[in-house]
Amino acid sequence: MTDKPFRYEQVAAKIEDSVRALQLRPGDKIPSVRKVSQDLGVSLNTVFQAYANLEAKGLILAKPRSGYVINVPPASARPPQEKKSNTIPSSVEITAMATAMMKNAKENGIINFSILAPVNDFLPIAKLNKYVTSALSEARHENYQYPLIDGHPRLLQQIARRTFRWHHGIEQDKILVTNGCMEAINLCLDAITKPGDIVAVESPTYHGILQSLEQRGLNVIEIGLNPQTGLNLDSLRQALDSCPVVACIFMPTCNNPTGYSMPESHKIELVNLLGERNVPLIEDDALGELHYQDGIYPAKAYDQHDNVLYCSSFSKTLAPGFRIGYVSAGNYHTALEKLKFGSNISTTGILQDAIGRFLESGQYDKHLRKMRLAIQSQMLRYVGTIANYFPAESKFSVPAGGLSIWIELPNGTNAFEVQKTALRKGIGICPGHIFSTSDFFHHYIRLNYCPLWTFKIEEALKTLGHLVR
Amino acid sequence: MTDKPFRYEQVAAKIEDSVRALQLRPGDKIPSVRKVSQDLGVSLNTVFQAYANLEAKGLILAKPRSGYVINVPPASARPPQEKKSNTIPSSVEITAMATAMMKNAKENGIINFSILAPVNDFLPIAKLNKYVTSALSEARHENYQYPLIDGHPRLLQQIARRTFRWHHGIEQDKILVTNGCMEAINLCLDAITKPGDIVAVESPTYHGILQSLEQRGLNVIEIGLNPQTGLNLDSLRQALDSCPVVACIFMPTCNNPTGYSMPESHKIELVNLLGERNVPLIEDDALGELHYQDGIYPAKAYDQHDNVLYCSSFSKTLAPGFRIGYVSAGNYHTALEKLKFGSNISTTGILQDAIGRFLESGQYDKHLRKMRLAIQSQMLRYVGTIANYFPAESKFSVPAGGLSIWIELPNGTNAFEVQKTALRKGIGICPGHIFSTSDFFHHYIRLNYCPLWTFKIEEALKTLGHLVR
Repeated sequence: MTDKPFRYEQVAAKIEDSVRALQLRPGDKIPSVRKVSQDLGVSLNTVFQAYANLEAKGLILAKPRSGYVINVPPASARPPQEKKSNTIPSSVEITAMATAMMKNAKENGIINFSILAPVNDFLPIAKLNKYVTSALSEARHENYQYPLIDGHPRLLQQIARRTFRWHHGIEQDKILVTNGCMEAINLCLDAITKPGDIVAVESPTYHGILQSLEQRGLNVIEIGLNPQTGLNLDSLRQALDSCPVVACIFMPTCNNPTGYSMPESHKIELVNLLGERNVPLIEDDALGELHYQDGIYPAKAYDQHDNVLYCSSFSKTLAPGFRIGYVSAGNYHTALEKLKFGSNISTTGILQDAIGRFLESGQYDKHLRKMRLAIQSQMLRYVGTIANYFPAESKFSVPAGGLSIWIELPNGTNAFEVQKTALRKGIGICPGHIFSTSDFFHHYIRLNYCPLWTFKIEEALKTLGHLVR
Repeated sequence: MTDKPFRYEQVAAKIEDSVRALQLRPGDKIPSVRKVSQDLGVSLNTVFQAYANLEAKGLILAKPRSGYVINVPPASARPPQEKKSNTIPSSVEITAMATAMMKNAKENGIINFSILAPVNDFLPIAKLNKYVTSALSEARHENYQYPLIDGHPRLLQQIARRTFRWHHGIEQDKILVTNGCMEAINLCLDAITKPGDIVAVESPTYHGILQSLEQRGLNVIEIGLNPQTGLNLDSLRQALDSCPVVACIFMPTCNNPTGYSMPESHKIELVNLLGERNVPLIEDDALGELHYQDGIYPAKAYDQHDNVLYCSSFSKTLAPGFRIGYVSAGNYHTALEKLKFGSNISTTGILQDAIGRFLESGQYDKHLRKMRLAIQSQMLRYVGTIANYFPAESKFSVPAGGLSIWIELPNGTNAFEVQKTALRKGIGICPGHIFSTSDFFHHYIRLNYCPLWTFKIEEALKTLGHLVR
């Protein structure tokens, strides 16, 4: 690409400006190609190119038989209200509901907005295949033997190198590779907690975390999330003052299910607050690499207290099916090694080696940039369509990243009923019930914008919108 | 091969007979090639071929500069005495010792008799590589997405099919694929037990099992093993009468560390005994496929009570590095599904698919037959050498299968000291301490006959023998 913009790009920029000036809302038609061609004195072809460009950016949407309409409503999104925190420790009963839901959602013929994973179209499959083949032929076929407990040295080195840009990076010998991010979080819980302990989570929080707490007989308090700034630090401070919290599990970047992120300054405040009080933070950064903006780091990057147990994976960025995650747990590293060894010896080396080779080749950052643009464009199309078809009383926030949209349905709607009815129509969504031990979110749904945009998807969202009414 | 034996085979059989008649002991020289040639009136070349045949069978051993000596001492093996059972429930503290040992043993330059895994020479690597490649290119690259909780359908089907020959086979929809056999056992423990419960294990038992019990705050009673018949059923009956045992974890076939197996009739007695008392048996069959004889089945094959939770893996027969195991837990299946999902979602599908394809191709049984012969030949060489170089007071039993030899050193020897000294000389072994919560086995070592036989191995065993003296 040259530095000088193409003619159609200049035209696209002008159209963007005039759209803003007109204060068009999602679903509003934009001026026709012919009109813009006349107004700006450019060829029809240039306008077509400009519209294609705007469409690729997710700003406008081609609607069959009605030309182009406004897609993205960042300014017009109606964020749900922040819920108050729930600081009365309560036990957890989520597993049965969540497992049944996941099994249902895997049925054939379903348009699946309930599984949170990048579709294959966004993954560098050909390259990864090549590196798996290299890993299989590794000198003396070493990967056929029991892998090292900590992980494959090539991958450990690459993970450590990626954190050089952090304020406080992580050392190669303080990383443990796991079977995905959930195993990482579970090992941390096993190292830190005992049954009956109190753990603070976000409200709402990923149901997998609640299942882990339930399985371990832990109690939970829930800290509210703000659509713009994520975790409410005041609520957290108050909760820590009133409860003997032994650990926190938070997703400061691209929270699941909401897609909310904390500003970097809040992350710094968070790690200092917890570091000073010696309350370990188990950071779930599974979606952290899928923020749309630059200059975003995990809370661990600011951890001068060595108090953050950092958990992440390649499941959301490279290959959900590889099941490769990792944890850097500082002082808990040795404890985690023992737990991992006792749990399943070690994680398969072949796929670790393959990912290590991919990172080594220097292609990961480029891949992430491409993928972020692709999922942002998906998000914009989804959000625009939801704004069009869902009842006006429903609320949602434009995510800062990740792969899901958190939607507040009109008060009184039972999300669980919506989920069951939708499933009968071949559409999978997650009811808000499974993301909290409180009843705050019984009229919420999590909708993952993973399935590649097609008119079938638009139809499914339209059907959902009707179901909700 | 034709039905009619080759001339050298007839000669080999005659030599075998005369060796038996002479009651030669391990290490004794056998008659020279020239003498046999004269005695039997056959060519020198035929005798050479016959000796090579006997060597391949592991019966004799070429010793540099001293011709052929007797290798296998099945009749002359000195089995250790059966230890009395330890039925006072005790807590477990094994993990720290075992983890440190495994880390040490992975160091470079070590002759490793401590890791129990088949060497690559015995694995069908080229074929498995081919099937991994096929799995990567699976239609629509499905294996890149989150695998199903239960496992890859191709592998599940093949595992179920292999049990058709059992009296009571297992159904495909009652199998759950895990990250190796230890994860399978751990999921069973999580489904059945709560902290403080009493679990019965064999004495000695695989240290990984003791680590799992320790991690869960469980108490253990230990049931003695008989070198010829494995688990002592009378001791078990008495223990069940006197203790509220909530589950048993046994390896009826090819126990680790001893290599002892129960006769099939004892397995039937075992499953009936436990089935009638409703005490679940978690059967660890990780090494069950590596018995030397035909007609051997796991206890699960006789389980008419649906009371056995059957755990196994492909780690000892196909690819330790794949980390693919499985469990068939009958009525506990749904509980295990939830635990697996909560623990790490599911097991990587690519490597499941690859193993599924290998089984589908019908090559597994042939591979197992070849591998059993190969490891039996290894075992014979090891056992013969140990008989030669270890002090006469040391005792060991010829295993019925598996990959390890359990050696009782002269009374008063501290196996932990032997292990430390051996490690300094570049030899890894496992001290008996880690296989029991009692102090019965502090003068025992487990020696895995995995490293491919070479003169370097013979030298290492000789060094070990000297260390022990």
